[in-house]
Amino acid sequence: MLQYSPSLDLAFTALADPTRRAMVERLSSGAASVSELAAPLAMSMSAVVQHLKVLEASGLVVSQKTGRVRTCRVQPEALSAAERWLNDRRRSAEHRLDRLGALLGAAAPEQDTTT
Amino acid sequence: MLQYSPSLDLAFTALADPTRRAMVERLSSGAASVSELAAPLAMSMSAVVQHLKVLEASGLVVSQKTGRVRTCRVQPEALSAAERWLNDRRRSAEHRLDRLGALLGAAAPEQDTTT
Repeated sequence: MLQYSPSLDLAFTALADPTRRAMVERLSSGAASVSELAAPLAMSMSAVVQHLKVLEASGLVVSQKTGRVRTCRVQPEALSAAERWLNDRRRSAEHRLDRLGALLGAAAPEQDTTT
Repeated sequence: MLQYSPSLDLAFTALADPTRRAMVERLSSGAASVSELAAPLAMSMSAVVQHLKVLEASGLVVSQKTGRVRTCRVQPEALSAAERWLNDRRRSAEHRLDRLGALLGAAAPEQDTTT
């Protein structure tokens, strides 16, 4: 039953931190340098780089260095894998609740008006 | 820029562990007692209870004790909140890539066949 998915472990761990979610949010509207990513965050550049490393390890973000500038990009397909896991579980749970509702409806039919 | 969402912190933290994902997966197909949840997991009952507490703190799972049996249920709307966060970011990133593709297409139009 226990299907081990290291990539989901890393993706959900990366997303559990509000700073890293803010970085993903920034990058989802366009590529950015590390300095641009750090600008709105009230923390040291080395803390930002540590968060970036967690995001890169998860595959949610990739970065490339050109000259002295490292440009970061979000990877939509990595977001999609985590989203799909949640979607499958939610749909399964909702489907079960719908069936339960139908069963309860069948067990308690509308009031008999002939009596 | 940094929008602090404690509930997303807790949900993604809860989902970062494969045992807790297995428990959510089991519960998405129907309510279960703690013993039923523990049965397929190779760990002590107290470890299972600890994982359950993390899931309950995140709002992904609720439990109710009747007599000596604690029954656990997944909360689809809590899964939905995390799913929506991912969906919004992914769509934003894909939209940006589509626009980039269109811009590149406009900058390099189809080969001129008149020359």
